[in-house]
Amino acid sequence: MASSKKVALGLDFGTESVRALLVDLRGREQASAVSSYEHGQITDTLPGTGEKLPANFAFQHPQDWINSAAAAACEAIEKAGLQGDEIIGIGVDFTSCTMLPAKRDGTPLCLIKEFAEEKFAWPKLWKHHGAEKQTERINRLARQRKEPWLDRYGGIIGLEWFFPKVLETLEEAPAVYDAAEVWLEAGDWFVWQLVGAGADGLVRSTCQAGYKAMWHRVEGYPSPEFFAELHPKLENVVADKMPGQMLAPGESAGNLCQAMVERFGLKNSVPVSAATIDAHAGVPGAGAADPGTLVMVMGTSSCHMLNGRDEQSVPGVAGVVEGGILPGLFGYETGQAAVGDAFDWLRQLAGEPNFDRLTEQAATLPPGAEGVRCMDWLNGCRTPLMDGSLCGAFTGLTLGHGSHHMYRALMEASAFGVRWIVELLRENGVPVEHFVATGGLPHHNPLLVQIYADVLGEPISVPRSKQGPALGAAILGVLAAGAEASSFATTREAIVAMAGTTAGENDRQPVVVQPDQDAHNAYSRVYADYRKLGNFLVS
Amino acid sequence: MASSKKVALGLDFGTESVRALLVDLRGREQASAVSSYEHGQITDTLPGTGEKLPANFAFQHPQDWINSAAAAACEAIEKAGLQGDEIIGIGVDFTSCTMLPAKRDGTPLCLIKEFAEEKFAWPKLWKHHGAEKQTERINRLARQRKEPWLDRYGGIIGLEWFFPKVLETLEEAPAVYDAAEVWLEAGDWFVWQLVGAGADGLVRSTCQAGYKAMWHRVEGYPSPEFFAELHPKLENVVADKMPGQMLAPGESAGNLCQAMVERFGLKNSVPVSAATIDAHAGVPGAGAADPGTLVMVMGTSSCHMLNGRDEQSVPGVAGVVEGGILPGLFGYETGQAAVGDAFDWLRQLAGEPNFDRLTEQAATLPPGAEGVRCMDWLNGCRTPLMDGSLCGAFTGLTLGHGSHHMYRALMEASAFGVRWIVELLRENGVPVEHFVATGGLPHHNPLLVQIYADVLGEPISVPRSKQGPALGAAILGVLAAGAEASSFATTREAIVAMAGTTAGENDRQPVVVQPDQDAHNAYSRVYADYRKLGNFLVS
Repeated sequence: MASSKKVALGLDFGTESVRALLVDLRGREQASAVSSYEHGQITDTLPGTGEKLPANFAFQHPQDWINSAAAAACEAIEKAGLQGDEIIGIGVDFTSCTMLPAKRDGTPLCLIKEFAEEKFAWPKLWKHHGAEKQTERINRLARQRKEPWLDRYGGIIGLEWFFPKVLETLEEAPAVYDAAEVWLEAGDWFVWQLVGAGADGLVRSTCQAGYKAMWHRVEGYPSPEFFAELHPKLENVVADKMPGQMLAPGESAGNLCQAMVERFGLKNSVPVSAATIDAHAGVPGAGAADPGTLVMVMGTSSCHMLNGRDEQSVPGVAGVVEGGILPGLFGYETGQAAVGDAFDWLRQLAGEPNFDRLTEQAATLPPGAEGVRCMDWLNGCRTPLMDGSLCGAFTGLTLGHGSHHMYRALMEASAFGVRWIVELLRENGVPVEHFVATGGLPHHNPLLVQIYADVLGEPISVPRSKQGPALGAAILGVLAAGAEASSFATTREAIVAMAGTTAGENDRQPVVVQPDQDAHNAYSRVYADYRKLGNFLVS
Repeated sequence: MASSKKVALGLDFGTESVRALLVDLRGREQASAVSSYEHGQITDTLPGTGEKLPANFAFQHPQDWINSAAAAACEAIEKAGLQGDEIIGIGVDFTSCTMLPAKRDGTPLCLIKEFAEEKFAWPKLWKHHGAEKQTERINRLARQRKEPWLDRYGGIIGLEWFFPKVLETLEEAPAVYDAAEVWLEAGDWFVWQLVGAGADGLVRSTCQAGYKAMWHRVEGYPSPEFFAELHPKLENVVADKMPGQMLAPGESAGNLCQAMVERFGLKNSVPVSAATIDAHAGVPGAGAADPGTLVMVMGTSSCHMLNGRDEQSVPGVAGVVEGGILPGLFGYETGQAAVGDAFDWLRQLAGEPNFDRLTEQAATLPPGAEGVRCMDWLNGCRTPLMDGSLCGAFTGLTLGHGSHHMYRALMEASAFGVRWIVELLRENGVPVEHFVATGGLPHHNPLLVQIYADVLGEPISVPRSKQGPALGAAILGVLAAGAEASSFATTREAIVAMAGTTAGENDRQPVVVQPDQDAHNAYSRVYADYRKLGNFLVS
């Protein structure tokens, strides 16, 4: 007898592990489970051969993704006391650009004996930094040729993106490039395995393609002429080695194949959403159903995302992609390269075992940290300058200042970075009306959220759930299941019901941090210093 | 029977204690002794009344100077096994501007019952910072009136100088000002007590007067018109309340009076040199006999001094005084407001108990600290900008940098500050040919001296003696004793014999730190960054 309970499964792939989250259609968590990848991040030696890898290399094992996801799903289903037939849809979010070469039948090249000992046959993790030369050449050529897509990415593409990684393999291991019949994102590969489709059934996510592979709904990928000028063999890479149908996250990539129904502990085949990037899943996961809500995913670095109704060109915004975050909307992605990482850098600089003293003392300081100013570019500037070579700075230092002054100034600088992004979006016709802070940091650092609210002069909602991306993935699974199965007529309805302020239990209400007007006024003066310092540092 | 041995007594007055040093005419130390002032620095409460003092106040007790100096001198004479008749002259160096109001007979106002309970009657220690308002007004008025003396002090006079302290008392305690018959430097007061002269025998040092009271050999003090515009009662302060004959350090202020012969353990009256400032005594004490030798006295802050043959106007140089350091030469004084203090600030920032780790790790870094840049204005900029409101900065910071990078960048910035000063002197016609590093820091921090040598591209001598000022004071005593007593025909002869590289025992040879040419070339590029950062910070 089929259960009347309806549940969605969200699979949230991180760098070390995958989380399976089961939620009902009111966003109530049924259970969750985490499974670490057997091989974790492959950064030291290649499995099998023990070959030592260069310092900036990072791979993953494709079998880990299947094994860990299946284990986590089965454990969550058991924990929730479900039969498996309550699940109506599956959503998948993945790190990106994590990518791999495969055969037409989906077999990763690294799992074929002939290529197992060739490191460039392995899936490259998002943080693999082997393609520095290639990235530089791609950017130089794109500027020379005035490629039209360059503007959509703030004038520069990133070292961690898709085509730098492809070109790196072509140049470093041409045999692997030749043997690869399909180059694809790991999230797309995983969804492809779930639905068990052949070569013709491969679905690519507009999110990953749009944000990491310069794809545009109208213009497509960069032209064969561009690719040919980069490398003769790259000319037809899209036509020859990148098959697949483009679908937005929330659109169904197909139904779970029978083998996976069994491995994942389900009772029947259900729709699987096209994949999405982990950070981008945080947008529906934070209940941001409407355009104009900036979702700040704050962790070691920050990714600030927003949906808009139109496509606007905003200088320095890392990507604007139609259907990039949710179907039917234009997703804007911006980012800050060092946030939690920068705070931790300062903690270590101060020789502190934790943030207790720094936070306590920084909280007693007035806005402006008694004259200390900071530029938070300790890992370069992502939005809006897209320049990884830029560096951080502190000014206004006197013998009377301590590490807590620098910590406060650093938090303030981080907030000014967001203010700059928001001003840019608004000035270029993209409304920004609401603010949500999610990711790991806001829960641990309420002082930081208060500083952000004061600097922006806007209230900031902090969802209580710490599983935003997994919840977002589950919502995408519900969208893929369709209106008949879920009874949600629109994307907005699903998000509001499952992640909005009235979703879930009462304790799911987000904390709303209100700005202080006096502090906001004081910060506006300090922000002018920040921009002035930024101008100096780029000069 | 008179001894044939000839010895000089140097009295070196510090902030907490006075040192008595006995050396023979070849610079060989006979003995030394230190005596702490009974009242130390008077910063909390006024002696006698217990009145709580403001935070920026600092006084001393005049009787402490006599008592401690006499005790130290007697102890040194006894330690050296001398009879007291071997001493041919006495030199005195003193902190400055430490100053006091007195009666015509030399009695300090604070020792008169009527004024003992009035805090403004007490000697103000050099670091007394009560005259902020007055300093600002003096500078403003001098700029308005385009006072000709302003240029000699780099366009600004300091909070710790003589007339701000006088004006503070006039405004805060007019009765004390009225009762004061003589305003004078503590060093001059002490020499006055030694020679036991009446009002007519008072000698003022051209060093203290020139560096701290805007006195010039030709132009004299600022005009009565200037003083009258500051305050009507100040119009004739020089004529009415600042009697005395101007003499250079090394010129005799008179012979030790009989009462002091006994108190100081001598057998007969000997000449006493006009006083000098403690840092300035370090110039002869470091063996810098010739014009063109920059003596860098490096401690919590640094004072860099140089003798020249001519008077040149150098923008930002804090003082150029004829006879300011040695008779017959023009003494140039420049400074850096935070050196050892800044290093200690960084050590505390890094939570380190000492400098061991920072030094060890900083030493492994190449010139330029792997991209980290610093501006060392953590206590403002003394030379050449004379602006205490300027602040320090670090740029070029990335997540890969640690506190040892910042420490190295700070040491490099400190060296760049000296390079800037040296360039300014040379560009304005003041030769700088040799470099001597003295004070407390060079002995503790050989890496710092190497960085200075590399940045300057010049060898730096580090005298082994740690008693440079006391030795310098003793040399001034020998000069005061005259050529007949000492058999030195010139100032140069005395300095070379007593503090030159061939003076003293063999272990007195200075360490000479040679510059590395590659490092010097590298630093020239980093120095350009330093100046560029400085331009930004003052903008």
